[in-house]
Amino acid sequence: MKITLKKLDLFAAINTAGRAVSVKTTMPILQCLLINADDNGVSITANDMELAIETKISAEKCSVLENGTIAVEAKLFSDIIRKISFEDAADVTITSDGTLVEITSESSLFRIQEKDPEQFPELPQMREGHRLTVSQFTLKEVIKNTIFSIAANDSNKMMTGELFEVRGNNLRVIALDGHRIAIVNTELREEYESVNAIIPGKTLSDISKIIEGSADRDVEICFDDNYVSFSFDDTIMVSRLIDGDFFKIDSMLSNDYLTKITVNKRELLNSVERSSILISESDKKPLIFKLEDDSLNLRVNSPTGYLDDVLRVEKGGKDIMIAFNPKFLLDALRAIDDEKVDLYMTTSKAPCFIRDENKKYIYLILPVNFNPSAY
Amino acid sequence: MKITLKKLDLFAAINTAGRAVSVKTTMPILQCLLINADDNGVSITANDMELAIETKISAEKCSVLENGTIAVEAKLFSDIIRKISFEDAADVTITSDGTLVEITSESSLFRIQEKDPEQFPELPQMREGHRLTVSQFTLKEVIKNTIFSIAANDSNKMMTGELFEVRGNNLRVIALDGHRIAIVNTELREEYESVNAIIPGKTLSDISKIIEGSADRDVEICFDDNYVSFSFDDTIMVSRLIDGDFFKIDSMLSNDYLTKITVNKRELLNSVERSSILISESDKKPLIFKLEDDSLNLRVNSPTGYLDDVLRVEKGGKDIMIAFNPKFLLDALRAIDDEKVDLYMTTSKAPCFIRDENKKYIYLILPVNFNPSAY
Repeated sequence: MKITLKKLDLFAAINTAGRAVSVKTTMPILQCLLINADDNGVSITANDMELAIETKISAEKCSVLENGTIAVEAKLFSDIIRKISFEDAADVTITSDGTLVEITSESSLFRIQEKDPEQFPELPQMREGHRLTVSQFTLKEVIKNTIFSIAANDSNKMMTGELFEVRGNNLRVIALDGHRIAIVNTELREEYESVNAIIPGKTLSDISKIIEGSADRDVEICFDDNYVSFSFDDTIMVSRLIDGDFFKIDSMLSNDYLTKITVNKRELLNSVERSSILISESDKKPLIFKLEDDSLNLRVNSPTGYLDDVLRVEKGGKDIMIAFNPKFLLDALRAIDDEKVDLYMTTSKAPCFIRDENKKYIYLILPVNFNPSAY
Repeated sequence: MKITLKKLDLFAAINTAGRAVSVKTTMPILQCLLINADDNGVSITANDMELAIETKISAEKCSVLENGTIAVEAKLFSDIIRKISFEDAADVTITSDGTLVEITSESSLFRIQEKDPEQFPELPQMREGHRLTVSQFTLKEVIKNTIFSIAANDSNKMMTGELFEVRGNNLRVIALDGHRIAIVNTELREEYESVNAIIPGKTLSDISKIIEGSADRDVEICFDDNYVSFSFDDTIMVSRLIDGDFFKIDSMLSNDYLTKITVNKRELLNSVERSSILISESDKKPLIFKLEDDSLNLRVNSPTGYLDDVLRVEKGGKDIMIAFNPKFLLDALRAIDDEKVDLYMTTSKAPCFIRDENKKYIYLILPVNFNPSAY
C-alpha cells in the first residue's frame, strides 16, 4: 500500500473512527485501525465488536499510489499523525511493505510495526430494514436530553440503552433507570413504518460526540433486527442493538395531578444546586419541597448543614410536601431550555412530572421517603 | 461575629487563602479557614503548617456589625459561597453564635457547624530580615522558567526547593534534580544585601498561581533565617524555608565547548515532541542527536518504532553524537521564548548547555548513555 493525503483529512478520519477502538480488550487487534486504499480512496475502520465505525477519504482528497490494506495500533498511529507536522495542509505519505509501515511528512520519517489485517473483524452485514432520516441537530438533541437517565451500571442491560420508537411521523426516545424516566418526542419530516429498537447508551453517546450537530445535515438511521446503522457525511457507524422488549411505561404516564407549579427554571436549578452542597451520597438525606400558597421552600437538614431556600411560584391545586434526590432534578432541569417549567405532583409517594404543554419532553421522577417532622 | 460583604470579594479572598488549606491531614483544623472581623475589616487565613496565607477585605468593602473570630470547614464554606447567589454583587451576611454559623444571601439561608478558632495555628512571627521588591510579572516568570527542574520526590529535600540568591542587583534562581539544572538571572531595580534562601517548590507554585502577574504591581519578599514572606495586594503568604546549604553549582558552569549549534526553537521543540511518542518511561530508550555539518538528525530506535527527523542548523565546531532523555529538552525549550536557541556541547559524556548570550537563562542537561551502532 502507498498513499499520500493531507494531515488534516487523515487526522479527522482517525478521530472519527477512533471512537470504536477498544480501550480494554484481550484481543490486541481491536486496538487497531484498519486502513484500506483502493480506487475509491482511503477508508479507516475501527471495531470493538459492539460498535464499528468506517469513515472514508474520497479519491479526490488523496492519492492512492498502490492499493492495499494494513492494520496499525490506533493510539500510536494517532499520536504520530498528530505530531508528524504542525501544518494541517502538510502531505503525509504512508507506505507498507507487509511488515513495517513507513509514515513520512516533510523531513520526518516514522517506522512502526504492522498488525495482521486478516485478524481484523468485518463490519456487520445488515439486512434490509427500516430507514429513518433526521437532521444531525435533532439526533444530537434527543440524545443529550435523555442520555443522563440511563442506568450507570449494567445489572439490568435494558436500562443501559434507550428505546427509539417510531409511530407515523413521531419519534419517541425513552431512557430510564428505575428511579426516573426521560422521554423526548420529536416530529419527523415524513411518516415512517413503526420501529422499536433499543440502542446501547455508549453508541448514542459516541455518535453525539462525532456528529457536528448541524441542522442542515442529515443522518440516515437504518434498523434491522440486530443492528442499527447511522450514515452521515463520509462515515457509517454500525452498532449491535440490545435484545428484548423495552419496559411498558405508558400506564405510568398519568395526566392527573393535584398540584401544579410553574417556576423560573434558572432559579429552581440554582436552588437545587445549592441543596446538593449539603447532600452526600453516603448519608442520602433528601431535598424537601415544601409548597405553601405561592411560596416553595427547598430545605435540607443533613449532618453537613441546614439549608432553607425560598422561591416564588405560580401554584394550582393543593399544598404539598415531597422529597427528592436532587441529582435527578438537576439532570432534568439542565436538559430543559425553557425559561419556565411546570411541575405536576399528586402525593408525596407518587411520581413528579416535569413536562411542557406539548409533551415534547416528559421527565418523571420518583420521590423519596422522608420524616416530615425534621423539616 | 456578624459581617456583610459582597459575594465577589468574599469568594476571591477564600480562593486566595484556600491555597494554604491542608488537603491531607490528621488535624481537621488545618482544613479550615479562620475568619476574623474587627474595625479594620475582615481577614481570611489558612495555614497548613508549611505555608500560611492571610488575605484582607478592607473595612470600606465590608460592614462589620459585630467583631469576632470563627473557623469553618474550607471546602464546604467555599462551595456555599460559590452557589449561594449567582450575582457577584449580591450581599452575603455571616452571623455566628459560637456554635453555628448562619450564611444568608437573598432568599437563601445556610447553617453549618463552627470549628474551634482557638485550635487554629498562629501565623509564624518573622524576625527582621532582608527585603526585596520585584514586580509580580518578574516573580511569576522566574518561577515558571525554573520550577520544572525541581525533583518530583523528596528523597533529597533540598532538590524540592529553589535557591533564591541575591548579589547586588542580581537575583539568581536555581532549580536542579540531579539530571539537570535550570538557572534564571534577573536584574533588580536596586542593590540589595546578599540573600541565600531555599524556598519550597510548593510555595513557589502556589504563589505563582495566586499573583496576577502584572508588571505594574509589586511583591515584597522578606527573608529571615527560617521563613520567607510574600506581600502583595491585600495578601501575605508566609512559608517555611528549606534548611541547609544549597548545592555548589558554579564549578559545573563551564564556558568551554567544542560544538555550538543555533537552531529554530519551534522546529527543535516539534522534533523532540515527535521523538517522545516512541519513548516510554519503561524502556528508557534515548533520543539521539547526530550532528553532521549543518544537519542535525534526531533519531529514536525503540520497541515502539523508529524515527528519523532532520533539522537545518548553524554549526560551529565539531560534529557530535549525543543522547538525551527528551523530557528534559522539552521542559527547557518550552520555557524559552526566543525564536532561536543556542546549544553548547563538548563530548557525549559532558553536559549540554542551552543558554542565551547574556545568560539570562542557563539550562544544563546531562546526556545519557547509548549504543552508537544502533543508530
